[in-house]
Amino acid sequence: MDKIRIVLAGPRGRMGKEAVLLIEETEHFELVAAVDRINEGKYISDIEGMPNVQAPIYTDIEKCFQDVKADVLVDLTTPEIGRVHTKTALTYGVRPVVGTTGFSEEDLKELKQLAEEKELGCIIAPNFAIGAILMMKFSQMAAKYFDDVEIIEMHHDQKLDAPSGTGLKTAELISEVREAKKQGHPEEKELLEGARGADYEGIRLHSVRLPGLIAHQEVMFGGFGQTLKIRHDSYNRASFMSGVKLAVDTVMNVDTLVYGLENIID
Amino acid sequence: MDKIRIVLAGPRGRMGKEAVLLIEETEHFELVAAVDRINEGKYISDIEGMPNVQAPIYTDIEKCFQDVKADVLVDLTTPEIGRVHTKTALTYGVRPVVGTTGFSEEDLKELKQLAEEKELGCIIAPNFAIGAILMMKFSQMAAKYFDDVEIIEMHHDQKLDAPSGTGLKTAELISEVREAKKQGHPEEKELLEGARGADYEGIRLHSVRLPGLIAHQEVMFGGFGQTLKIRHDSYNRASFMSGVKLAVDTVMNVDTLVYGLENIID
Amino acid sequence: MDKIRIVLAGPRGRMGKEAVLLIEETEHFELVAAVDRINEGKYISDIEGMPNVQAPIYTDIEKCFQDVKADVLVDLTTPEIGRVHTKTALTYGVRPVVGTTGFSEEDLKELKQLAEEKELGCIIAPNFAIGAILMMKFSQMAAKYFDDVEIIEMHHDQKLDAPSGTGLKTAELISEVREAKKQGHPEEKELLEGARGADYEGIRLHSVRLPGLIAHQEVMFGGFGQTLKIRHDSYNRASFMSGVKLAVDTVMNVDTLVYGLENIID
Amino acid sequence: MDKIRIVLAGPRGRMGKEAVLLIEETEHFELVAAVDRINEGKYISDIEGMPNVQAPIYTDIEKCFQDVKADVLVDLTTPEIGRVHTKTALTYGVRPVVGTTGFSEEDLKELKQLAEEKELGCIIAPNFAIGAILMMKFSQMAAKYFDDVEIIEMHHDQKLDAPSGTGLKTAELISEVREAKKQGHPEEKELLEGARGADYEGIRLHSVRLPGLIAHQEVMFGGFGQTLKIRHDSYNRASFMSGVKLAVDTVMNVDTLVYGLENIID
Repeated sequence: MDKIRIVLAGPRGRMGKEAVLLIEETEHFELVAAVDRINEGKYISDIEGMPNVQAPIYTDIEKCFQDVKADVLVDLTTPEIGRVHTKTALTYGVRPVVGTTGFSEEDLKELKQLAEEKELGCIIAPNFAIGAILMMKFSQMAAKYFDDVEIIEMHHDQKLDAPSGTGLKTAELISEVREAKKQGHPEEKELLEGARGADYEGIRLHSVRLPGLIAHQEVMFGGFGQTLKIRHDSYNRASFMSGVKLAVDTVMNVDTLVYGLENIID
Repeated sequence: MDKIRIVLAGPRGRMGKEAVLLIEETEHFELVAAVDRINEGKYISDIEGMPNVQAPIYTDIEKCFQDVKADVLVDLTTPEIGRVHTKTALTYGVRPVVGTTGFSEEDLKELKQLAEEKELGCIIAPNFAIGAILMMKFSQMAAKYFDDVEIIEMHHDQKLDAPSGTGLKTAELISEVREAKKQGHPEEKELLEGARGADYEGIRLHSVRLPGLIAHQEVMFGGFGQTLKIRHDSYNRASFMSGVKLAVDTVMNVDTLVYGLENIID
Repeated sequence: MDKIRIVLAGPRGRMGKEAVLLIEETEHFELVAAVDRINEGKYISDIEGMPNVQAPIYTDIEKCFQDVKADVLVDLTTPEIGRVHTKTALTYGVRPVVGTTGFSEEDLKELKQLAEEKELGCIIAPNFAIGAILMMKFSQMAAKYFDDVEIIEMHHDQKLDAPSGTGLKTAELISEVREAKKQGHPEEKELLEGARGADYEGIRLHSVRLPGLIAHQEVMFGGFGQTLKIRHDSYNRASFMSGVKLAVDTVMNVDTLVYGLENIID
Repeated sequence: MDKIRIVLAGPRGRMGKEAVLLIEETEHFELVAAVDRINEGKYISDIEGMPNVQAPIYTDIEKCFQDVKADVLVDLTTPEIGRVHTKTALTYGVRPVVGTTGFSEEDLKELKQLAEEKELGCIIAPNFAIGAILMMKFSQMAAKYFDDVEIIEMHHDQKLDAPSGTGLKTAELISEVREAKKQGHPEEKELLEGARGADYEGIRLHSVRLPGLIAHQEVMFGGFGQTLKIRHDSYNRASFMSGVKLAVDTVMNVDTLVYGLENIID
């Protein structure tokens, strides 16, 4: 198999650094250039803390695509820059994999049309943590067969909001496939207020906050004489890289825009 | 919705007793008769330890179907009797849900033909533990996105075989979708033999046996900075009942034979 | 070692049946008689569902102690009867192990005096689940070294009260050894009310209720870059038997009254 | 309470950096100086990546103790240097907390004598992960009440040895308090070799190795109808800091040498 030739935009950010490592460690990936706000004319290997990769750095993405033959743009910049980069990449025949949020409905419509005209894949995903996405997907599937479910999400104690975004999104996805149902004993009572957690259409959510924890969630289903648990533990930023890898491999084989990693998982 | 009228064969067995309770507790199910080796002319309520259900007991299944209008036969008897019952039910226009093993390829072929002629559903499942089936299904799905997986199955210490049947079947299902891969560090070494568990095409299986445990399995996937775990805990025989319930509901809407609960789960 | 000769009061109750099995399975225990409200003159083996043990049944405990030489009385009856049995046993030189609640301060004081006069051990324990007691003990010990802790208790959905008694007792024991401390981020906010659980002097308690679950509790401590979890799973009534066994062995070696199993665990 | 005045040796190492943060974040700790191989005359705040702390750096520990009044030396250097530092600190009336291994029996004897002469505390600990130490301590305690135990340790897949050092040490500690016992069914058989794990005097150890994992261990006890689990998750190097903090607080109140953190935990 030919290597997939990748241009990385945003190599110095926290996600960007992980992406450089991912591309280095993946045999069929090749980092052919990077796009950065600074460091024009330098190489990745010139930047402190970067691996010894001889990929040139460009500050102008158009010049980059003119000089370097690329298959995929991995964009880990900001929403504003990401929008421009995505369009430019498609124009130059390069397939974008974009990890930023902030695309409007209109942006997505326009980019989709452009991707289809060019017959190029384009994947935009606000969340690349493939384990979290599988957890949500499996939870929705299991909810068809188990009426009762509670969600326990556990995070470090610097987190402000409870429940977490992933916890709420999981509850939403489950409630799409089951009728609202108040769980627990109809006459249950809280001796201490809040013991039974938060209520989202009858689904109970519990938020644990402790120093030492990172980002964890367990979805627990109960039925006759059994429980089924689906748990995701995210230990660090690298957890996004499996999703980036999947997206790069997939973008080569689609010819339209796909929004959300859940739509390329079957 | 009209109630589903159920004849139960094998009401006094351990599974049978749970099935009587299931039918009682499910609003749209109705137990209209039972088939048993003994107790002709009595009622379920006459048998010690049974709930107060006025369903007549027959020792002759043909007589039962002649007297009582039924939609579904739930058969929890033995393989030999189950085979005969299944055929008889189809002949009388009753949809069988059968929880016994031991059907030959030929049996299944013949029953399938009969079901399709009669345009009747027929579900035969050696394992009704829906949570275990979902665990295996999700594990196979996750294996497409995570190359590394280990299986930890935990049972009471009266169990003779290690790994368990479910553990092995899970490893088989996973290995169907991934290339054989030796996991762990290439130069890892066991200071104590067996520490790294059993090896099934590179997948490691660990069997824990402790008094107090019942039947538990955790499938653990690892990738960049994250783990995904799928766990099933089976606490008692009632765990089969959610599968029986699903099968009864499903058998009303199919018009062929389905073998294995995994084939009615989507 | 000589066998410990045991009289069991209350052999037909749910706990009593487990106790008969425990004594049968323990090599150095011997069931020499049983005390029951009925069945005078029969043997344990005459009662349906009991193992084949030739221990005579008495309805009068005094007559029992006059006829049969015993070391220990295991009493699993009611509070009222248990009180009388305990006193009678001590009078006859038999060491009581009592699994009922409802002893007043005065009762305990009187029995303690009697035990010490007779130089006999006497153990009264409202909770024989040794795993639960260890969980509470370890939690209290760990709380000295970890300032932050949350308790997640999980029970079947027929349970009315939340949090559970064991959950509350664990929080109490922990709060005895740490100063009250509001955990989590000082500015954390609940997007859905109750997400952060109940608050007991700053300790958060979360109550999960699902069909299929039995009785489970996890105490989770968090600190710099680590978590420590202590978890007890109680699957059935037999979980009390390890505590009964420990109490029988211990009562032979003490010569006073001990209230609460936690006081014979070191 | 007066602040505890701390000199930190080895501030630029990975542990050292965490210690600087720990001291900064602990209200009653004060970093009064650092000892380093380089950077004489500079301040901690001059070193890149360090917090803004105005503590002077010395390359000569004797000069440091002559200039700066200190209560405690936290030494996170190498065994050779640590030995010298410990002795020097005691000579100058400063209490050492030392996180290096490699002290001989003779070293320890000599330092103990010196500490007692000076009536100064001195704590030397090869492992400061207080959660891991509690896990081992609780496991040993629980083993007195539960005859059956299995150990599951889980690490990243770059680890070479199986079982882990902590896994083996836990098994050793347990086997000190129980008689060797082959667990599981006497006639159990492995369908796949290694399924039942490694055997340490009858205790089974299972080593899971997956990318994404860090350092985790679960000790699982089983008995009549229940299980008790003690689990430690170590997510990063900061996990050692709770032990350093405990040692600094404790060393102020002892007047002899203590080797091993387990000996200051009660």
